[in-house]
Amino acid sequence: MRISELADRTGTAPATIKFYAREGLLPPAEHTGYNQVDYGEAHVRRLHLVRALVDVAGLPIARVRDVVAAVDDSGVGLPQVMGAAQRALPGRPATPTDPSRAAVAELVAAQGWVVDEDNPGLTQAAAVLDGWVRLGRKDLLDSLPAYARAADVVARADLARVWPDAADRDRSAETVVVGTLLGDALLAGLRRIAQEHVARTAVHPAHGVTSAPEETP
Amino acid sequence: MRISELADRTGTAPATIKFYAREGLLPPAEHTGYNQVDYGEAHVRRLHLVRALVDVAGLPIARVRDVVAAVDDSGVGLPQVMGAAQRALPGRPATPTDPSRAAVAELVAAQGWVVDEDNPGLTQAAAVLDGWVRLGRKDLLDSLPAYARAADVVARADLARVWPDAADRDRSAETVVVGTLLGDALLAGLRRIAQEHVARTAVHPAHGVTSAPEETP
Repeated sequence: MRISELADRTGTAPATIKFYAREGLLPPAEHTGYNQVDYGEAHVRRLHLVRALVDVAGLPIARVRDVVAAVDDSGVGLPQVMGAAQRALPGRPATPTDPSRAAVAELVAAQGWVVDEDNPGLTQAAAVLDGWVRLGRKDLLDSLPAYARAADVVARADLARVWPDAADRDRSAETVVVGTLLGDALLAGLRRIAQEHVARTAVHPAHGVTSAPEETP
Repeated sequence: MRISELADRTGTAPATIKFYAREGLLPPAEHTGYNQVDYGEAHVRRLHLVRALVDVAGLPIARVRDVVAAVDDSGVGLPQVMGAAQRALPGRPATPTDPSRAAVAELVAAQGWVVDEDNPGLTQAAAVLDGWVRLGRKDLLDSLPAYARAADVVARADLARVWPDAADRDRSAETVVVGTLLGDALLAGLRRIAQEHVARTAVHPAHGVTSAPEETP
């Protein structure tokens, strides 16, 4: 198909498609004549993936490039694709302090989690703790067990979706990428809904009294 | 203090501090002489907040500006500060399809959550569903109940942290902002740790068999 049809089918402007192609986010198009290229279904699919990662997950182009490169390289195994998806986090690479790293290590041990020391989540979580500590808000660390429990619930659901197709490398690679990266955005969205609900319930006049929200036991 | 001391204490280059000031992210400094300004503890604190939101949460400057404007305006009530923090999501404003909006509404009703129709989480969650559906991955929607449960656990912990200081508007406003926005980053980090742990456990040779990961009942 021509670029105009690809643009129509994916709701993406031709200039944006060309930009993504230059940035290495799309597989090469087939040259069918002078100054004319042909796009296929693989381009439609890839554009949907790139748009979701850029528009919904809010990832910078450079990280999307790393992720799709891992998906496209069939020599890259599933654990490595998961690693690429896991490293695609918002924010800048952090160098957290030792006390925050130790606090995360303690939480991980308390959960019975066993992971490599280069798991990008360890650095990310420690950077958040640093932010709270610098603002003098160590009290927020009381939420850590609840966050860890929620992470465990979600991770089990994530892996359960990968499992049925584990033998199909390409499909599993895509599941890992869209599950992990759109999953972050989904969790952030649902958390905002739940926050509003809990805030309303705790202060709702219909309850007669203004009661503190109850934490999940 | 001079800008050089502010830079040292916050690990932020003077040029970056000046940039944040021009962008309206810092309160004005006191002019103490020709071409000389004086910064105080409020600037140290604000810089830690801005750096955490930019570097760790990965928010664009424009969204950080909206959030700190709500925190700084004492005429803005706590629910409105929470609204500003809730709208500060990664990605671009989305216009999800009606079927995805309906699927989210169904999930919200199943959870017993009651929220305003303009809660930004509704749009965000529906945009994620659109991404999955466009990629032909409706099977990923099977994870929705687990994500909702995790969101509920985290939201209760979030609100429990706001509660003790609910009468102190400025402190509560800060709690809502750093809790919500760094909380997203914390959850993304812990999820990556849990994912690796669950993936290893499910395929670990020590288990003798390769068993599918178990979802939380």
